[in-house]
Amino acid sequence: MAYGYWKQGIADRLSVFNLFFRDNPFNGGYTVCCGLDYAIEFLENFKYSKEDLEFLSGLTNDNGSPMFDSQFLEYLSEMRFRCSVDAIPEGRVVFPNEPLIRVQGPIIQAQLLESPLLNMINYQSLIATKASRVCGAAGSDRVLEFGLRRAQGIDGALCASRAAYIGGCHATSNVLAGKLFNIPVAGTHAHSWVMAFDGELEAFKSYARALPDNCIFLIDTYDTIQGAKNAIEVGKILKAQGKSLIGVRIDSGDLAYFSTKVREILDSNGFESTKIVVSNDLDEYLVSSLEEQNSSIDIWGIGTKLVTAFDQPALGGVYKLAAIKKGNQWDYKIKLSEQVAKINNPGIQQVRRFSSNGTYIADMIYDVNAEPGIEPILIDPIDHTRRKKIKSEKLTYQDLLVPIFRDGKLQYESPELHQIRSLVKDELKQLDQSNRRLMNPHQYTVGLEKGLHHLKTELILNLREQL
Amino acid sequence: MAYGYWKQGIADRLSVFNLFFRDNPFNGGYTVCCGLDYAIEFLENFKYSKEDLEFLSGLTNDNGSPMFDSQFLEYLSEMRFRCSVDAIPEGRVVFPNEPLIRVQGPIIQAQLLESPLLNMINYQSLIATKASRVCGAAGSDRVLEFGLRRAQGIDGALCASRAAYIGGCHATSNVLAGKLFNIPVAGTHAHSWVMAFDGELEAFKSYARALPDNCIFLIDTYDTIQGAKNAIEVGKILKAQGKSLIGVRIDSGDLAYFSTKVREILDSNGFESTKIVVSNDLDEYLVSSLEEQNSSIDIWGIGTKLVTAFDQPALGGVYKLAAIKKGNQWDYKIKLSEQVAKINNPGIQQVRRFSSNGTYIADMIYDVNAEPGIEPILIDPIDHTRRKKIKSEKLTYQDLLVPIFRDGKLQYESPELHQIRSLVKDELKQLDQSNRRLMNPHQYTVGLEKGLHHLKTELILNLREQL
Repeated sequence: MAYGYWKQGIADRLSVFNLFFRDNPFNGGYTVCCGLDYAIEFLENFKYSKEDLEFLSGLTNDNGSPMFDSQFLEYLSEMRFRCSVDAIPEGRVVFPNEPLIRVQGPIIQAQLLESPLLNMINYQSLIATKASRVCGAAGSDRVLEFGLRRAQGIDGALCASRAAYIGGCHATSNVLAGKLFNIPVAGTHAHSWVMAFDGELEAFKSYARALPDNCIFLIDTYDTIQGAKNAIEVGKILKAQGKSLIGVRIDSGDLAYFSTKVREILDSNGFESTKIVVSNDLDEYLVSSLEEQNSSIDIWGIGTKLVTAFDQPALGGVYKLAAIKKGNQWDYKIKLSEQVAKINNPGIQQVRRFSSNGTYIADMIYDVNAEPGIEPILIDPIDHTRRKKIKSEKLTYQDLLVPIFRDGKLQYESPELHQIRSLVKDELKQLDQSNRRLMNPHQYTVGLEKGLHHLKTELILNLREQL
Repeated sequence: MAYGYWKQGIADRLSVFNLFFRDNPFNGGYTVCCGLDYAIEFLENFKYSKEDLEFLSGLTNDNGSPMFDSQFLEYLSEMRFRCSVDAIPEGRVVFPNEPLIRVQGPIIQAQLLESPLLNMINYQSLIATKASRVCGAAGSDRVLEFGLRRAQGIDGALCASRAAYIGGCHATSNVLAGKLFNIPVAGTHAHSWVMAFDGELEAFKSYARALPDNCIFLIDTYDTIQGAKNAIEVGKILKAQGKSLIGVRIDSGDLAYFSTKVREILDSNGFESTKIVVSNDLDEYLVSSLEEQNSSIDIWGIGTKLVTAFDQPALGGVYKLAAIKKGNQWDYKIKLSEQVAKINNPGIQQVRRFSSNGTYIADMIYDVNAEPGIEPILIDPIDHTRRKKIKSEKLTYQDLLVPIFRDGKLQYESPELHQIRSLVKDELKQLDQSNRRLMNPHQYTVGLEKGLHHLKTELILNLREQL
């Protein structure tokens, strides 16, 4: 496509693309925006290397002719990023149809960014959202991300650790992620530690000798109840040394039953402050169910189901052309579809979020070239009979997209990871509980500003008429 | 754990770990082994950098004390990989409980490899298997991997492209994967190409002017049938120039209906050789259903559902200690579990595959230190009453694990990617159709050699007695 734009002489035509998704993942009520920092790094380094161009010069069409003119490859070699990018910062809650990233620039460049931007934003937003759901289910308990061994690729694991931390996890077992992103690292020993010794008791004793300040024993290698007793025996030795048995981990079996039993055994032996850590294919539904059963779990280790977003491993983000410059005029663009939900919104969009007393009320998608009035009307993008009039005088508002690049120059300083993580917490507090519910949440209102709705309707009718 | 082994003075104790999974993914009948080449590269570069060690030296326990002695970090800084590794080559079909990788070496090193090896082998085997299922459903049709924008991370996308190609896909739309792995690249234009022009016909004409040798038009931006007619109009111009309309792509709507309709329109206008490409959240089940409906589809573009393995986004591979050296003796190891399926197999395992007239009959897991007899008996690892006697004189056999590293030195030359891809095809041919069925496949026989079964039973009984 880039080659086509170039050959047609329209490579430099100014265009606007929006990156958005159509449904919240996991049938949930919100999405946590994540991945922008990766996108910024990518855009700052956007260029074709000599090796890239050599590879492209070797590509051929089915008939054997070279796919690309050498002048085009020369054009690519000299191309420098000069788009303007606006985006919703990482850590904000976002909703279907809202542009998370808006790219304005020469169509050849804006087009080339489609797949990498989608890759980064789709996956990290998915995982940050999943983590926020798991952590929400776990309440005030600590949640540890244990996903490396089951993640989709090494980099999949790394950005999952980052996104999971942003979404609320307290630490990761991925030490490299800890190093790269300054995320707390935490883990416990595995079954193989226990198996490496002659018996579990000997294994726990050895661990306590080696790491007396870090004793969380995995107690289910052979038998969980016996494991708890062995842990207590070693816990008493630790106590005598002025150390403590920090925790025990259960990785199999009925976690509600075993956590309660093990809690009883620990408490009756004076180990009230020893934590119970659990793991074993957990997700937000199991965490929530175990919490409801008053199981005695203090710390949750979540791996596979978190880092792969097991029940929905892809956020269906898309990247659509919304406007193209013709002369001095913007020509607004939509794609038709049999389903109204799949017709994109045109224009150069901004999202305005209205709040009342610290609670988010509604988001409005509007065109930056048609500033909405004081009391705007929001129209549901799917059902145009659902409308909401904003009484602005009672509400505060803010626009969500902020400038990231201007003509290829970075304008934005990414917050520290822990700040993004705090932002997620603040955001979720400002979201009504009904929107945060795990199952069947209330749908948060996102509407098109009335003028934009009318413009879109007109574009659809015009296009349908031409068919 | 590594620190614990070191502190206990047993870091160098010789150990054997096996990497295996417990169930074929997708309720399928086989798994395609993939990812070894990544693992080899990782192992060849296995060491701790100065920055790694600086990071580790800054880690603290909950009480603020440093987590690691400085002597340990010095030990890590001098550590060089010296394990022996045997593995089943990429592209072979494999089954539950078979060791895909067997690592023998100092326990500290073998243990440290757990998460990275699992990460690489789990994901790539999952995707190669998924691809082989999709390609199997598509029969002789071409299958293109279109997954970059929805994959889990950039590297997730890259190794998905590699694994998908190994599993049978013909090309990828990920140009970087094409460059890095020498995979054919292929793609078509997106809706935004059509939207960038004043009308679809003008868009197709422009494309044909720019790329006359590469015309596959996406015809569903506004209306699929009208799109087909526009494609034909431009196809006639191409024909007049001695070029051809290679294909049309449909990305939405009822693909059975539209492909048939579009085929009729193409044929009745003399475009019998123009291919119909489809895409839109396809997987092996949809491909199979569309094939059964005699839809007129020639080329399949498969993205999200392939590269995320949407219906099962993780292969549950594990990495378990199977033996540890005590003095001059191997001490064989198992972990107990309430479920017999979760008790690992002990020993230094090899897999022997028996064939009859070019069809795989059964695999036997045996201990390399107890070479099985001429007519071995295989015992099902879950149900010990299911047994199979091998009549060796009628069968051929081969051992699947081959030496990869010996004492840290690479012994193995990885085949070219296209050779691995061919191997998958050969392997699937040797697998009975009943084992390859998409739904409810027949279970391929994998048994423990009788001696190994007895040894395992004895270990379980001994451990249970001690409880």
